[in-house]
Amino acid sequence: MMTFRSIQGRAAAALLTLGVLLAVPGAEAAQRKFEMNIEDTRITLVEKMQFHTFAFAGQVPGPLFYVDEGDEIEVLVNNVTALPHTIHWHGMLQRGTWKMDGVPGVTQPQIAPGESFTYKFTADPSGTMWYHCHVNVNEHVALRGMWGPFIVKPKKPTALEKTVTKEFIMMLSDWDSKWANKPGFGGVPGDTYDYFTINGKSYPDNQPMRVTKGDVVRLRIIGAGDKTHSIHLHGHIMTVAFKDGFPLPAPYKADTIAVAPGERYDLIFTADNPGRWMIHDHVDSHTMNGDRPMGGIMSVLEYTDIKPDDFYDWKAKKFEPNFYYEDSLKRGPGIYTNDGFKGQAVQ
Amino acid sequence: MMTFRSIQGRAAAALLTLGVLLAVPGAEAAQRKFEMNIEDTRITLVEKMQFHTFAFAGQVPGPLFYVDEGDEIEVLVNNVTALPHTIHWHGMLQRGTWKMDGVPGVTQPQIAPGESFTYKFTADPSGTMWYHCHVNVNEHVALRGMWGPFIVKPKKPTALEKTVTKEFIMMLSDWDSKWANKPGFGGVPGDTYDYFTINGKSYPDNQPMRVTKGDVVRLRIIGAGDKTHSIHLHGHIMTVAFKDGFPLPAPYKADTIAVAPGERYDLIFTADNPGRWMIHDHVDSHTMNGDRPMGGIMSVLEYTDIKPDDFYDWKAKKFEPNFYYEDSLKRGPGIYTNDGFKGQAVQ
Amino acid sequence: MMTFRSIQGRAAAALLTLGVLLAVPGAEAAQRKFEMNIEDTRITLVEKMQFHTFAFAGQVPGPLFYVDEGDEIEVLVNNVTALPHTIHWHGMLQRGTWKMDGVPGVTQPQIAPGESFTYKFTADPSGTMWYHCHVNVNEHVALRGMWGPFIVKPKKPTALEKTVTKEFIMMLSDWDSKWANKPGFGGVPGDTYDYFTINGKSYPDNQPMRVTKGDVVRLRIIGAGDKTHSIHLHGHIMTVAFKDGFPLPAPYKADTIAVAPGERYDLIFTADNPGRWMIHDHVDSHTMNGDRPMGGIMSVLEYTDIKPDDFYDWKAKKFEPNFYYEDSLKRGPGIYTNDGFKGQAVQ
Repeated sequence: MMTFRSIQGRAAAALLTLGVLLAVPGAEAAQRKFEMNIEDTRITLVEKMQFHTFAFAGQVPGPLFYVDEGDEIEVLVNNVTALPHTIHWHGMLQRGTWKMDGVPGVTQPQIAPGESFTYKFTADPSGTMWYHCHVNVNEHVALRGMWGPFIVKPKKPTALEKTVTKEFIMMLSDWDSKWANKPGFGGVPGDTYDYFTINGKSYPDNQPMRVTKGDVVRLRIIGAGDKTHSIHLHGHIMTVAFKDGFPLPAPYKADTIAVAPGERYDLIFTADNPGRWMIHDHVDSHTMNGDRPMGGIMSVLEYTDIKPDDFYDWKAKKFEPNFYYEDSLKRGPGIYTNDGFKGQAVQ
Repeated sequence: MMTFRSIQGRAAAALLTLGVLLAVPGAEAAQRKFEMNIEDTRITLVEKMQFHTFAFAGQVPGPLFYVDEGDEIEVLVNNVTALPHTIHWHGMLQRGTWKMDGVPGVTQPQIAPGESFTYKFTADPSGTMWYHCHVNVNEHVALRGMWGPFIVKPKKPTALEKTVTKEFIMMLSDWDSKWANKPGFGGVPGDTYDYFTINGKSYPDNQPMRVTKGDVVRLRIIGAGDKTHSIHLHGHIMTVAFKDGFPLPAPYKADTIAVAPGERYDLIFTADNPGRWMIHDHVDSHTMNGDRPMGGIMSVLEYTDIKPDDFYDWKAKKFEPNFYYEDSLKRGPGIYTNDGFKGQAVQ
Repeated sequence: MMTFRSIQGRAAAALLTLGVLLAVPGAEAAQRKFEMNIEDTRITLVEKMQFHTFAFAGQVPGPLFYVDEGDEIEVLVNNVTALPHTIHWHGMLQRGTWKMDGVPGVTQPQIAPGESFTYKFTADPSGTMWYHCHVNVNEHVALRGMWGPFIVKPKKPTALEKTVTKEFIMMLSDWDSKWANKPGFGGVPGDTYDYFTINGKSYPDNQPMRVTKGDVVRLRIIGAGDKTHSIHLHGHIMTVAFKDGFPLPAPYKADTIAVAPGERYDLIFTADNPGRWMIHDHVDSHTMNGDRPMGGIMSVLEYTDIKPDDFYDWKAKKFEPNFYYEDSLKRGPGIYTNDGFKGQAVQ
């Protein structure tokens, strides 16, 4: 379940680390240990569009942390890039552990190139959370892929979430190709964002979401970039059930939900309408790959019993069943890397 | 009630169509048939600012579909422009009719220039919906006026909406004058939106909203463009009653509501405070016509018993009583064109 | 409690006014009178970045109006700048006093340079409101600092707000340095906002928010600029309790809240987690001062019992206890100027 590949940092950093991952489940709280490099990594957003990132464990998004509420988390972070970083665990309360909150100059010094830092904290509260660098966020978060999902399974789930049979995670982000290969620069006023991704990939190089009639789907959307995205699902009524991980006291129905930077929405819907249904950002200009239309933040909700028509753009698409983390989430708490999100090490 | 004028497509398309509109109201569900061209049409946003659109029935917004929940809708669409299109009926569930959902390459092939397509579906669910093209949305929706209102009257209205005596529809959109006369181009990263409209017109060339003391007003706002608009009504407390057509379980009060692209909000308020009251986008830069201030998304809520003062900018304004569709909506379900929204055919 | 300094308008306006402030508290409603100049004033946003503003009483934000629900307000406004202005009291219903609503060409003529206007109205309803100019809002509101907080204390507070022990006000705004010293110009399509402020100051020249363990904090956030800001507080669960001054029927929990232009959110949280906690805009590009990272809309929630570490950027920070208005709000209803917000008169 918990696999991790040896990742070689660049030579200059003189840090050859082997990922170590331990989980000691107990009656009360598991201890979950993880070692993670931050690495100069080239990621392909779509087609030939590549971006230099500072990738957690060499992948964008970073590894999935899927843990139980109350688990003791320990993450050894090795910075093998040439720039300073930290990790903020967005949504974690850090009760009694404020120096683990990951804010440079406020809760800790920056983690300098070649140095390491160990974050230790309790998974509290439950819900859809995430983590990201907190140094020069205008570049590191907005343009360098320094984010990943952090899902905390609740001790006492709500009645509605107990009905869920399938889960997807969508992290939304924006990119400015002008800075693609200029690490240490970018994310400045006047920038023109021209690429838009779900889990680091733009349409058509991202993936469909596959469901079977009868599934109760939970869609965990995370605003990880600089822009607000207005996500519209066709053919279904979504219940907006959680905001920032917290159950809403009055869940409401919607077909379009605006997700601002830093926000998370958990949307629950029943897959009761077989077909092929678009899910996309309704900000029209976010459906672009550079100046080419019908790209960016778009995907298709596919029902397994609907056969591909000739006119279907993805009729020959190779399906990767873990693109939205559904396989990992099915397997239960753990810390998961994902080969599909890995890029190429930059030497 | 249901009028439609013969609309001549451009000669190249060799398609001279006569609009046909039928409604067969029954005890259970009416059949509503409509024929609609998509036409190259020049629309005037404000003053001399004209924009080349691909207009539904030669008007922007497109015709109002005001139907009963459960009605059987049939729309024959003739594409008499030089570019491919489709129509997505935003909010319609298309239960069992997913191939009527209007997404090119996913639910159907594009409707090529000179070709036609018939959409057939049931009006479900009720609420404030809309329709728009789904081909190259960055240009066709954002810059070419390919949108119109689709209102489904509920079988079981809520107690609150039963109190309503007057209804207005506001479709919000954004334009970049750089592309005004370059159909087939535009809507690319780096664009500068410089015109902003309500129902296709900018202040001061749009219209006041007229009410009489005691009216209970329902304002149906539709985010049809690329930007989020933060709509502020002066002098009244609005109840945010519906989101995307669905009644909110906990309606709340507001004086300003942010409407993201694709979203719809139904706001209900009592006209209990005679005067003249601004309603406008609180995004300051959206009150511009190009580089000229005090334009864009602004209007005035006028009480009928308040006489125009000398200082009133609209004291000599010619009133068009159907600009916000109030007349059409009063007349009951039907499909309505609107001469005031028609542009000039582009030869 | 109500202090006001003589403020000298520029000579050209030939208006030397002495602020006059009267409050006549009664059993039912106090009469609160204030005289306020609008003045050409140079404000420092951060470091050496100065901006020409049209400042209410020579300060940005303008004076705090903190009044009781039902109070009779009277404000004599003297325009001693070279451009026309008005004041709109955003959120005030102006029942029966629509000509006091402050919209040029709709409820009154502009207040010309050298002229005065007296606004008289009742403080109704209660809540977090604000005031701002309504002439050429794209420049005057977006770029010239013409806004201030207007807080109306309710006759019947909610159970939740009764628990509050400490209050902060945050007014969010955006600036384009290109227009810094070009009064009468700017706020046009294509502008690049490059400075972002809380109460008129950017990090690190704004202030920490100081709390003591056990405080129940009410954070009143006002979207006073052109952009949407996504405010994230670390380490605490916020209850979104009020929207635009109105109590929400179903308050909900959040760690990040998107505040659109014109909107207000009142967030309530218990200071139960000693430490140092960032509060900042999660729109990454809004944490910039020009092209320099880690500025803009960021601040730190400090607990009084946490000692400054060596790595703390603000370890030698001089604390100004009224930057978020906490001192003024503690003193009860009144109209408060704030020397810390005053700029330099422009001759």
